[in-house]
Amino acid sequence: MTEPDVASSDANNISLSVRDDGDNWVINGTKWWSTAAMRPDCKVALVMGVTDPDAAIGKRHSIILVPFDAAGLTLVRSLTVFGFRDLHEGGHAEVRFENVTVPKENILGERGAGFSVAQARLGPGRIHHCMRLIGMAERAIAMMTARAKTRAPFGVLLADQGVVQTWVADARTQVNAARLLVLQAAWRMDVEGNKAARHDIAAAKIMVPQVVKDVTDRAMQVFGGAGVSSDTMLSVLYAQARFLQIADGPDEVHRRSLARAEFASAPLIRVI
Amino acid sequence: MTEPDVASSDANNISLSVRDDGDNWVINGTKWWSTAAMRPDCKVALVMGVTDPDAAIGKRHSIILVPFDAAGLTLVRSLTVFGFRDLHEGGHAEVRFENVTVPKENILGERGAGFSVAQARLGPGRIHHCMRLIGMAERAIAMMTARAKTRAPFGVLLADQGVVQTWVADARTQVNAARLLVLQAAWRMDVEGNKAARHDIAAAKIMVPQVVKDVTDRAMQVFGGAGVSSDTMLSVLYAQARFLQIADGPDEVHRRSLARAEFASAPLIRVI
Amino acid sequence: MTEPDVASSDANNISLSVRDDGDNWVINGTKWWSTAAMRPDCKVALVMGVTDPDAAIGKRHSIILVPFDAAGLTLVRSLTVFGFRDLHEGGHAEVRFENVTVPKENILGERGAGFSVAQARLGPGRIHHCMRLIGMAERAIAMMTARAKTRAPFGVLLADQGVVQTWVADARTQVNAARLLVLQAAWRMDVEGNKAARHDIAAAKIMVPQVVKDVTDRAMQVFGGAGVSSDTMLSVLYAQARFLQIADGPDEVHRRSLARAEFASAPLIRVI
Amino acid sequence: MTEPDVASSDANNISLSVRDDGDNWVINGTKWWSTAAMRPDCKVALVMGVTDPDAAIGKRHSIILVPFDAAGLTLVRSLTVFGFRDLHEGGHAEVRFENVTVPKENILGERGAGFSVAQARLGPGRIHHCMRLIGMAERAIAMMTARAKTRAPFGVLLADQGVVQTWVADARTQVNAARLLVLQAAWRMDVEGNKAARHDIAAAKIMVPQVVKDVTDRAMQVFGGAGVSSDTMLSVLYAQARFLQIADGPDEVHRRSLARAEFASAPLIRVI
Ligand SMILES: Cc1cc2nc3c(=O)[nH]c(=O)nc-3n(C[C@H](O)[C@H](O)[C@H](O)COP(=O)(O)OP(=O)(O)OC[C@H]3O[C@@H](n4cnc5c(N)ncnc54)[C@H](O)[C@@H]3O)c2cc1C
Ligand SMILES: Cc1cc2nc3c(=O)[nH]c(=O)nc-3n(C[C@H](O)[C@H](O)[C@H](O)COP(=O)(O)OP(=O)(O)OC[C@H]3O[C@@H](n4cnc5c(N)ncnc54)[C@H](O)[C@@H]3O)c2cc1C
Ligand SMILES: Cc1cc2nc3c(=O)[nH]c(=O)nc-3n(C[C@H](O)[C@H](O)[C@H](O)COP(=O)(O)OP(=O)(O)OC[C@H]3O[C@@H](n4cnc5c(N)ncnc54)[C@H](O)[C@@H]3O)c2cc1C
Ligand SMILES: Cc1cc2nc3c(=O)[nH]c(=O)nc-3n(C[C@H](O)[C@H](O)[C@H](O)COP(=O)(O)OP(=O)(O)OC[C@H]3O[C@@H](n4cnc5c(N)ncnc54)[C@H](O)[C@@H]3O)c2cc1C
Repeated sequence: MTEPDVASSDANNISLSVRDDGDNWVINGTKWWSTAAMRPDCKVALVMGVTDPDAAIGKRHSIILVPFDAAGLTLVRSLTVFGFRDLHEGGHAEVRFENVTVPKENILGERGAGFSVAQARLGPGRIHHCMRLIGMAERAIAMMTARAKTRAPFGVLLADQGVVQTWVADARTQVNAARLLVLQAAWRMDVEGNKAARHDIAAAKIMVPQVVKDVTDRAMQVFGGAGVSSDTMLSVLYAQARFLQIADGPDEVHRRSLARAEFASAPLIRVI
Repeated sequence: MTEPDVASSDANNISLSVRDDGDNWVINGTKWWSTAAMRPDCKVALVMGVTDPDAAIGKRHSIILVPFDAAGLTLVRSLTVFGFRDLHEGGHAEVRFENVTVPKENILGERGAGFSVAQARLGPGRIHHCMRLIGMAERAIAMMTARAKTRAPFGVLLADQGVVQTWVADARTQVNAARLLVLQAAWRMDVEGNKAARHDIAAAKIMVPQVVKDVTDRAMQVFGGAGVSSDTMLSVLYAQARFLQIADGPDEVHRRSLARAEFASAPLIRVI
Repeated sequence: MTEPDVASSDANNISLSVRDDGDNWVINGTKWWSTAAMRPDCKVALVMGVTDPDAAIGKRHSIILVPFDAAGLTLVRSLTVFGFRDLHEGGHAEVRFENVTVPKENILGERGAGFSVAQARLGPGRIHHCMRLIGMAERAIAMMTARAKTRAPFGVLLADQGVVQTWVADARTQVNAARLLVLQAAWRMDVEGNKAARHDIAAAKIMVPQVVKDVTDRAMQVFGGAGVSSDTMLSVLYAQARFLQIADGPDEVHRRSLARAEFASAPLIRVI
Repeated sequence: MTEPDVASSDANNISLSVRDDGDNWVINGTKWWSTAAMRPDCKVALVMGVTDPDAAIGKRHSIILVPFDAAGLTLVRSLTVFGFRDLHEGGHAEVRFENVTVPKENILGERGAGFSVAQARLGPGRIHHCMRLIGMAERAIAMMTARAKTRAPFGVLLADQGVVQTWVADARTQVNAARLLVLQAAWRMDVEGNKAARHDIAAAKIMVPQVVKDVTDRAMQVFGGAGVSSDTMLSVLYAQARFLQIADGPDEVHRRSLARAEFASAPLIRVI
């Protein structure tokens, strides 16, 4: 979906051109942050672009299936997050499309229905990220407690330092609370469906990365120099949490939705 | 329990003297923060004091039942919290005991078992405070959203200001997470008992007052001048949340317990 | 200036009516948060109201001098901040004006120039508040350090607890930084004038109350129960810092000005 | 100085062995985080090690000059910080010493005076880091304001979003305050000397990296995906600020010093 030249947190801005050439779609434009595009086993891209520039807003975009070996498609480069390439996920690619041509049948779902097709995946995708982040936080807690039990600058075990105890207690408290928020969203998805759960998902998507940033940051501090190096995985975990405040909808966009829901449901009573 | 002259977050410091006079207990000392002592329907005090100064630590204290109209007992004054007297709760009294004499049978539980008797009430007491605080936070959210839908400085409804939306979204997220933590603790108390739930209670006791402080503080800001005045109840709610970071165990004491539990359960693995 | 029924952070909303009756001004409306109005030695009010409702925005308001003993002027009540009345400052009054009549000469400055007259006082007023707050923070630090050197829950002097050391060190760091911001603003007012210093004043007005809230909040925690009671002055200091995030311009309004200045001065370079 | 196997925030732990072999020093052990060691123009290492294991604490260590091409010295690898190698600074090396032998005259200063020799450089080094960080923060502000003036998700320029204005205003406020703290420390170093300025340096060393983390984090958020990638320098700036909460003395160590100074200078008055 995302493109370097437009503010992609607002999906309506997506501008890649998908021209209807009778039998084929002809695609021109540039995408970036195409996660997994560089995995050897990744063969087909789902490309969001404008098929109907003159339609009403919300009806202009469609998703097209494009094989990675199509002529005119170039994997320009692998982007980094902090200094990491996320190669175990296949990296985050910049992809250029120059007159890439695929048959009309390669459209996913209805023409002009790109956003509703995408939406079906995004809710579950967000909660999935949250679940992985909770696991990362647990790992960070396990690491920091184990380290604190063996390292004793100034003759005091870090596990006995009030400051470190504060970090561990707050980490446990925050991670437990964040996990419950994720479980509640997942439960509502199962029981009431993705749409009913969308505000729970937004709340989890806002809270979890912030908690995991806090927890991994403190774990780094416990480790000293080793914490920011790649001898521990903490800086990788931090980078994952940090980018998830931007990817799959920046925090600000989820906050706006959540606030609007709250304003809509709040009774307009005389309040004081 | 609490006394002005000793650090009462450490209950071992409690120093009120309960002398064994054969048939009676003779009580001398000063307590403060005796919540509800000034309610007209409050007739009997549960007084923690030292019955056995030479016993082992942990076995020195007992709880004695003392009628408020006993000779030698003086309600010195009502304390304030941020200027408020909490009179609906009967205030927080300072109580002086000068040779207050009650029969030996007025002991609650075993002699020297004051702490274990008290402990039975403190866990449930803490979660009860958390539940009330969650309700206060909901009230603050209802108030701030209602106000934001009717007040428009600089021609923009506060409900449409990104900053206010951030406050509302974060309030909803934090309160939902905090409520789940309270529910989890309550559930474990029901299913596994108070002792098994003690770390869940500690986590809730740490998180909830902080969340309610944050939420009521932002609600105040939405209300402007009215928010800090007594025309809204927000400053009362804030004061309640604030003092609960001290009463029923200061945060620092709960953090230490929680951290110790985490250190005890964490596997001593090679972590990096 | 401020009125209960309009969003007064936007001074254009001020609606008190000041009708031109030929020889006199006839004033109707309600003000609140009139600080000092209840001091016995306070004899004259400076009242901002609308003299010219049909003039261009910015030219509608004038300031009128009104003796407190004028017929039709009622001191309705004294407002509270948290539970405090600020009586040493003469309280914060609600004042009702019912056909209060004063001679035309009682106007301060030009007709319709109410805002520019007020502005001359507001910059210096803000920095004055900041200076007082810095003093309050120093007092809070002195109190918390002194207490920490004498109180030892769990057998450890609070002064030796890492957590308390963190609070003291952060308090010292923040207060020193905040004081320098105030001094810089004051210096620029002296050397370059109030207008040139307005962004420095805004920065100080944003930072100082936040710092003083943080510092007094931690000091309270060091004192335990005594900290939230009126046996220490900490809760009064906290309330002062808190209301100054609203009075003399809410933080949000100062932030907007500061951001606009930054956007105006920033070079529109290619940035990455 | 730093070694992987000991808690090096406490310099007394440094354990690299420097054996006195009559004419020579024979060095064995491992160092890491030797910044600049991999620069081609870096020819000589200043190595802190134990020359006098039986002396009093504080008198055991000396600094030895060791050419990088000495036999037995191996540059094991270059460490990373958040995935970055800091190659413009010559990287952060792990260095192994196996029977590295240098003449006795290669000692810097007195035998056993390693710490006082090192101390002379560390104060100025810390303030130098702070100065560079302030410049980084200014760069981040310039970047975020320029971006906010050209990017408009959801049809609103980011420069007009209240949330982004808050970030910019807070960045300007914090950076101005932090800069003044650095300038004050530098001024005292010039006028009263490094020792008199040590608490000012500690305060700056605590505050500045935190401010620069905050500012660069918000700037990243303004840039969206580009912000965490290496297409902007923001993630590099963030990593610099982050590691400076650990290097040249972790925050916790500076906080302890600052608190102790505050406790020492505070009058032991009756405080409430
Ligand atoms: C590691 C990583 C992996 C990714 N993987 C994928 C992927 O697989 N597929 C894909 O399509 N995309 C992917 N993305 C892209 C991601 O979804 C976008 O970066 C994101 O949607 C933001 O778009 P943008 O970068 O264009 O930022 P912009 O749209 O320019 O937004 C910039 C900033 O503006 C602010 N903002 C936006 N709206 C508002 C508002 N209403 N109020 C206040 N502030 C606002 C936010 O702070 C936001 O961060 C990935 C990104 C990263 C970093
Ligand atoms: C509104 C209110 C109602 C109350 N109601 C009751 C009541 O009904 N009955 C009753 O008995 N008591 C009551 N209390 C008293 C309350 O329980 C005590 O104030 C509390 O236990 C703290 O004791 P203290 O005030 O003596 O503080 P201290 O024991 O002097 O502690 C001061 C501070 O030291 C710090 N500290 C303590 N231990 C550590 C540590 N290990 N590490 C780091 N820092 C530490 C904490 O920040 C603490 O706040 C009430 C208090 C308030 C404010
Ligand atoms: C203790 C105290 C003393 C005072 N003393 C005086 C005095 O002596 N004389 C006097 O005239 N007044 C005084 N005031 C009043 C004070 O100046 C006003 O309360 C203040 O200007 C805010 O006006 P309001 O209360 O009507 O809030 P509103 O205008 O209703 O504003 C409410 C909130 O809206 C938010 N807001 C406003 N604009 C924006 C924006 N652009 N973007 C986002 N959010 C925004 C802010 O969070 C603000 O707090 C005092 C107030 C207090 C509490
Ligand atoms: C990028 C980078 C560059 C560096 N460059 C150099 C260099 O050029 N030369 C050099 O010699 N070293 C260098 N260092 C090393 C740095 O100085 C050490 O990492 C630092 O002194 C901490 O030592 P440590 O890593 O052994 O952590 P430890 O000593 O194990 O400490 C771990 C953590 O314990 C905590 N802690 C320590 N004491 C206390 C306390 N009293 N109370 C509470 N908590 C405490 C802190 O949070 C600390 O972070 C560099 C480090 C980095 C990351």
